[in-house]
Amino acid sequence: MDNLKVAVIGGGSSYTPELIEGLIKRSKELPVREIYLVDTQEGKAKLDIIYGLTKRMINKAKLNVKVYKTLNRKEAIKDADFVITQLRVGGLKARASDERIPLMHNTIGQETTGAGGFAKALRTIPVILDICRDIEKLSPKAWLINFTNPAGIITEMVLKHTNVKTIGLCNVPINMVKNIAKILDVDCNRVKIDFAGLNHMVYGKKIYLDGEDATTFVLEKMGDGSEINMKNIPDLKWDTDFINALKMLPCPYHRYFYMSDEILNEEIQGLKENKGTRAQQVMEIEKNLFERFKDLNLNEKPKELEKRGGAYYSDAAISLISAIYNDKEEIHTVNVMNNGAISSMPDNVVVEVNAVVSKLGAKPIAIGELPVKINGLVQQVKSYEILTIEAGLTGDYYTALMALSTNPLVPSVTTAKKILDDILLENQDYLPQFNIEK
Amino acid sequence: MDNLKVAVIGGGSSYTPELIEGLIKRSKELPVREIYLVDTQEGKAKLDIIYGLTKRMINKAKLNVKVYKTLNRKEAIKDADFVITQLRVGGLKARASDERIPLMHNTIGQETTGAGGFAKALRTIPVILDICRDIEKLSPKAWLINFTNPAGIITEMVLKHTNVKTIGLCNVPINMVKNIAKILDVDCNRVKIDFAGLNHMVYGKKIYLDGEDATTFVLEKMGDGSEINMKNIPDLKWDTDFINALKMLPCPYHRYFYMSDEILNEEIQGLKENKGTRAQQVMEIEKNLFERFKDLNLNEKPKELEKRGGAYYSDAAISLISAIYNDKEEIHTVNVMNNGAISSMPDNVVVEVNAVVSKLGAKPIAIGELPVKINGLVQQVKSYEILTIEAGLTGDYYTALMALSTNPLVPSVTTAKKILDDILLENQDYLPQFNIEK
Amino acid sequence: MDNLKVAVIGGGSSYTPELIEGLIKRSKELPVREIYLVDTQEGKAKLDIIYGLTKRMINKAKLNVKVYKTLNRKEAIKDADFVITQLRVGGLKARASDERIPLMHNTIGQETTGAGGFAKALRTIPVILDICRDIEKLSPKAWLINFTNPAGIITEMVLKHTNVKTIGLCNVPINMVKNIAKILDVDCNRVKIDFAGLNHMVYGKKIYLDGEDATTFVLEKMGDGSEINMKNIPDLKWDTDFINALKMLPCPYHRYFYMSDEILNEEIQGLKENKGTRAQQVMEIEKNLFERFKDLNLNEKPKELEKRGGAYYSDAAISLISAIYNDKEEIHTVNVMNNGAISSMPDNVVVEVNAVVSKLGAKPIAIGELPVKINGLVQQVKSYEILTIEAGLTGDYYTALMALSTNPLVPSVTTAKKILDDILLENQDYLPQFNIEK
Amino acid sequence: MDNLKVAVIGGGSSYTPELIEGLIKRSKELPVREIYLVDTQEGKAKLDIIYGLTKRMINKAKLNVKVYKTLNRKEAIKDADFVITQLRVGGLKARASDERIPLMHNTIGQETTGAGGFAKALRTIPVILDICRDIEKLSPKAWLINFTNPAGIITEMVLKHTNVKTIGLCNVPINMVKNIAKILDVDCNRVKIDFAGLNHMVYGKKIYLDGEDATTFVLEKMGDGSEINMKNIPDLKWDTDFINALKMLPCPYHRYFYMSDEILNEEIQGLKENKGTRAQQVMEIEKNLFERFKDLNLNEKPKELEKRGGAYYSDAAISLISAIYNDKEEIHTVNVMNNGAISSMPDNVVVEVNAVVSKLGAKPIAIGELPVKINGLVQQVKSYEILTIEAGLTGDYYTALMALSTNPLVPSVTTAKKILDDILLENQDYLPQFNIEK
Repeated sequence: MDNLKVAVIGGGSSYTPELIEGLIKRSKELPVREIYLVDTQEGKAKLDIIYGLTKRMINKAKLNVKVYKTLNRKEAIKDADFVITQLRVGGLKARASDERIPLMHNTIGQETTGAGGFAKALRTIPVILDICRDIEKLSPKAWLINFTNPAGIITEMVLKHTNVKTIGLCNVPINMVKNIAKILDVDCNRVKIDFAGLNHMVYGKKIYLDGEDATTFVLEKMGDGSEINMKNIPDLKWDTDFINALKMLPCPYHRYFYMSDEILNEEIQGLKENKGTRAQQVMEIEKNLFERFKDLNLNEKPKELEKRGGAYYSDAAISLISAIYNDKEEIHTVNVMNNGAISSMPDNVVVEVNAVVSKLGAKPIAIGELPVKINGLVQQVKSYEILTIEAGLTGDYYTALMALSTNPLVPSVTTAKKILDDILLENQDYLPQFNIEK
Repeated sequence: MDNLKVAVIGGGSSYTPELIEGLIKRSKELPVREIYLVDTQEGKAKLDIIYGLTKRMINKAKLNVKVYKTLNRKEAIKDADFVITQLRVGGLKARASDERIPLMHNTIGQETTGAGGFAKALRTIPVILDICRDIEKLSPKAWLINFTNPAGIITEMVLKHTNVKTIGLCNVPINMVKNIAKILDVDCNRVKIDFAGLNHMVYGKKIYLDGEDATTFVLEKMGDGSEINMKNIPDLKWDTDFINALKMLPCPYHRYFYMSDEILNEEIQGLKENKGTRAQQVMEIEKNLFERFKDLNLNEKPKELEKRGGAYYSDAAISLISAIYNDKEEIHTVNVMNNGAISSMPDNVVVEVNAVVSKLGAKPIAIGELPVKINGLVQQVKSYEILTIEAGLTGDYYTALMALSTNPLVPSVTTAKKILDDILLENQDYLPQFNIEK
Repeated sequence: MDNLKVAVIGGGSSYTPELIEGLIKRSKELPVREIYLVDTQEGKAKLDIIYGLTKRMINKAKLNVKVYKTLNRKEAIKDADFVITQLRVGGLKARASDERIPLMHNTIGQETTGAGGFAKALRTIPVILDICRDIEKLSPKAWLINFTNPAGIITEMVLKHTNVKTIGLCNVPINMVKNIAKILDVDCNRVKIDFAGLNHMVYGKKIYLDGEDATTFVLEKMGDGSEINMKNIPDLKWDTDFINALKMLPCPYHRYFYMSDEILNEEIQGLKENKGTRAQQVMEIEKNLFERFKDLNLNEKPKELEKRGGAYYSDAAISLISAIYNDKEEIHTVNVMNNGAISSMPDNVVVEVNAVVSKLGAKPIAIGELPVKINGLVQQVKSYEILTIEAGLTGDYYTALMALSTNPLVPSVTTAKKILDDILLENQDYLPQFNIEK
Repeated sequence: MDNLKVAVIGGGSSYTPELIEGLIKRSKELPVREIYLVDTQEGKAKLDIIYGLTKRMINKAKLNVKVYKTLNRKEAIKDADFVITQLRVGGLKARASDERIPLMHNTIGQETTGAGGFAKALRTIPVILDICRDIEKLSPKAWLINFTNPAGIITEMVLKHTNVKTIGLCNVPINMVKNIAKILDVDCNRVKIDFAGLNHMVYGKKIYLDGEDATTFVLEKMGDGSEINMKNIPDLKWDTDFINALKMLPCPYHRYFYMSDEILNEEIQGLKENKGTRAQQVMEIEKNLFERFKDLNLNEKPKELEKRGGAYYSDAAISLISAIYNDKEEIHTVNVMNNGAISSMPDNVVVEVNAVVSKLGAKPIAIGELPVKINGLVQQVKSYEILTIEAGLTGDYYTALMALSTNPLVPSVTTAKKILDDILLENQDYLPQFNIEK
């Protein structure tokens, strides 16, 4: 296996240049020979732009890599060694509605963990399932590296319902490490974190500097966390008493769960002031980005991309692929089957934890029970995730209602129902599994 | 053991006449010879009234039972066979503040499961712990029958931190059975329910009529549940689609969790309209009740008591005591150590389930895992309960903040902190374990 | 359901008269109107004898019950309310070989828990599975009351692989209660035992007299247990130091596990002295019994039956049926799905514990973790049981070898293989699932 | 921490030269500056010899390492960075009695997992506990690397009852890897094994060659295993049908459990033929070894040491220390707290599994449930281990009897008692915790 074929599904995404940069950076250790960029008809214009930029980047790096663009997914998947899914069913337009609909019902419009993420899951599950059926037939030994959000839900769906070898990836843990390193003003490989939880609901149980427990020190230094937020999360300060009480590092997305009322108020205020949702802001950024990408003189990842919010995907994804290919037995924070790693959660659910990555895939490192402080919330979100997978696969209205009612960001079943009905109506083109007339 | 001594702590409560009625009704099978009504100095006036009524009731029934009133708890506990705790630390005045403080911060003011119940737990834990220390010394073989809310939290605290044999009791399950019987228009002993969950968070997993599974039929008949609510719960209709999705019977208190926004709005509206909280309504009812109790011609439980919201405590409590005394091996729904009964919960937490009651106490009947539909919420509330017990015992501010932040009815840590600070200030006389100056 | 039909499969068994006696004794509470005695062609002669005796017993009791004999199992099962399986595939001849084969290889020849029981399980699983398929079609609401040994294995197989409602029954627990009552010289309803374990591997964790813990006292009184053995178990004394160490009541069959070397020596000695195995002794007893049953003047269960070793099946089985029919919510010790009752065992394995029996079947009472003293042995035997079920269903040679090697009474895999090969050869007529030529 | 101090307790052991060789080999990455060899008065003569050889080895390697010999344990432990325990309480003489006593009662005389290992555990627990108390006071940050057998029991005792950071080490897993590599005729770093189980009871669940699952292939190649046994284990062939049934790689010690009768017969035969136990053979080997060590011209580990049975301790131990010191995040197979790694075992027991070793110690990699094929046996041995620790700490006779009765190699409680009484008598000088007069 020294002529690797990589298929990037959602190849027209603005994230792709970072991926390509990552491949170029690791070209010595990772002998990729073919890159297939796949997208749908709707994404063709973007795909063309990305294809051009990719070719210019590869040429500049003088690599012997063939780049293809295609709308034919099967062609891309056939005999691939790695399939990367970074697609967005319905595009940013769907994201905008994911964020808007809940807000119309006085509910946080979060596109990955909230009601918006629920809609996204329903749209994405059938598409990823289809992709997996292709992989099962056309490249059964391929590894699926899934970025597609909600990454925990999608990864669990794939691991439970297909035979595809998959690892779910998110840039949140790596951002947390980098941010702590920034706070401490040290190189980020001196910082280690014991991660435990779920995707976008992950805690740093312990933080180590040079192999010594530095949790208390770091949390104190972190203060209200103003320095360490991520681009796409509302910029609310943490209450330092709460951090003292938690004695763990929350992830940026935890703001949605621990500051629900403030975030909701801020979002409603934003709506009133016509600020637009995050999706609308991203659309604007994307428009500019693609203008930039078109520039025939551009032959590297442009700086502007970092504003996009997906920083360090390159590091995370390509280094994961390299760890697999080179059998590195290296620790990555990924979404994998629990298998006892968190002993207070069932074996057969996906969790986000540190895992040893090698040719054998990602094996989670056991960390015992979740502290009672976080166990309840994590369990509740996991219940929501399991129900969402079931709803996404079966298209059953009542399961969908139960799932959404179980999401801690949804304030009542009455509201859940209104949001669900709006989601089903708005997304009917993407939800073949549901009988929308209900 | 055929000359039973019963100590009623909080003997001046308006619930006492129902207890006495229960004892009279079962006097054949339950040879109670001494009843000690205990209360604190603040409750002396009420205690006197209840004592008078109790004596008149016993006389009317021509029973050979001695009734005592005392402010000396130790005297009452000494050599008692059964100790019943139905006290309310701080009285209805404290309840009023429990309901008002959260509402001031736009949070549901629920006096047992919400932030109000949290305040109540903090006040109650030291008192019950003291009582248990007395029992350990003065009547180590006594059974403690605990009604005091939050009953699940209090029972878990006693079972984990003392050597007192205790069973926690609530009238919610029995009310659910009676209401289903009413809906079906059958005698209530033809209805059986598989209960699973926590106190004030209990679900009817299956409902049986004459030994046949009638769950679907009953839930359909129940419709929006208007007929089966309890006196002290806001009268909101269930969404029938939600009930279809749940496929289980929720308890009345579940409205707080599944209709949080509507209840909050209703409570805020009530506040604006100066309706007063439930505590204020109860104070009014109580005032009238005690006027009625004073009547020297009254020698039975007055009808008006039923408005009070505590219906069927008599049935529940005295029949529990009789099941123990007479070694009946009878099924009661109680709060006991889990011990595997709900296999997806830890062994050493208190759950509310069906249990076999005999001289050996209450042994829970195993029901396997909680359905994923309810597992998350129940786990979250249990995390809150465990943290609340720890906070109540240690008086640690951060643990208290963590506990309150974990309660699903509290919308943010920021709000949690405001409520906590108000609670600590308002209740400082009752919270010796906290160093309030913080 | 007031015209009950009962089908007794293995109706020609010598146990049947006791069953009939039990039905007669409870005729007031249990309106049985039809009894079908079924047997195979090989058992026809015995069936005729039992049929005659049954009719005479029913007549003497002046009951309005129709008794049928048939070789057509389907006719008996059709619309039955209760199906009782007390069959013995291969008859006592097979039992003799079950006991002899292991002994030929220096291994304990135990017909229920040892290698003999393994052979019995392989023979019995396909037959019971067939019966269950009939019940699923012809009387899907019927309760299957299974006595057939190995009862734990058979019950687990039925509960995991069919839709038949079943409860597994054994007379060991009731014998233990009766024996303890005998030791204490009290009526047996004053004795209660917390049973925990597996069939023929059940421990009395606690023993209560009149609702008080009397474990230590009883174990001391029991001494070396000479008074309380069962008819069909070698009469070895318990070491009182061991009982002091265990601090629980072992069941008679535990002798095989805790005194393996002595039992083996005794059995080998017996073989040398030509004493015959237990099967041979039972054949002799049976021969005499059936002579006795033939007596046209006999119209009740003869005293001699008690020597047979199956004492109290009547009490156990018919009172179980009555508890179901009359919805008694009565505690019986039975084989049921664990469901968390023993929290250190998986949910989906059959255990022998106290359970509440009503129209809803048998619901186990939770008892928490097994003490570490017994957990290991019980887990090992359960592993053996699970593997045996798999071997019995699939007929896979290697699974069978693994199962037998896992049985703690089998001293090595080499011996296991020899025994297995002999079992497969000897029982080939009864093992259609195995491809014996291997 | 770049001037490491290493204390070797049991420094006079014949294993020490291999340790020293390992340190020399890794001197570049592991800056050891002081080595303390500690032993007791009884071991002084050997200590002197080893001290001489160690100095000559260090001199030859031209390392700047100071070597000390001492009978004062505290001096050695003070401020040590690593403490290695390879002691043998009672020496080979005690081992000889450990192997002889059980055999006198027709029971396998195994010095680590059998009744002999039980005696060894009782002798060793108080000594290791004492050492840990010293470490807690004199070098609380030191890592304890424990080789002392029974390593699983000793490690669990330390982790449960002291605050010492410890990792338990055994050369069995590394030998299994090396042997598989030998069979495959490949370099051993191309072979990986998923280990699961307990010390001397570890299975290779899966075997990988170059990152591909090669389990079936390897097991077939292995055949009856004649090529891959270890020096100190009876040389019995595996039954290939059993290996086919197991579908996993057993460890050499599993022969004791799966071929109990054959091993017992062989040992008894050996005894009759006056072959001497393994201890006696080892005494002879040791005598010769120490003669060799004395040779002033010897300045390296002599080849003869490999016959001793402890091969690869050097690799295992020093590479473990280096992985900790250099924060390597490298996978080693060690004895650590389970913490969910084997999800069907309790969190708080020690298991032998693959773990990631870094400055933070050894974190086990989660592998889910044990296959049912091995779960029972592993659970039983773990029960035995837990009881043995309790007996070793408390000196309670009944707990000791229960422990020994639970060991699957002991054929009955009667035999257990005889062996226990002999052990207590024979070892009375080493068992201060027991009141031997009993």
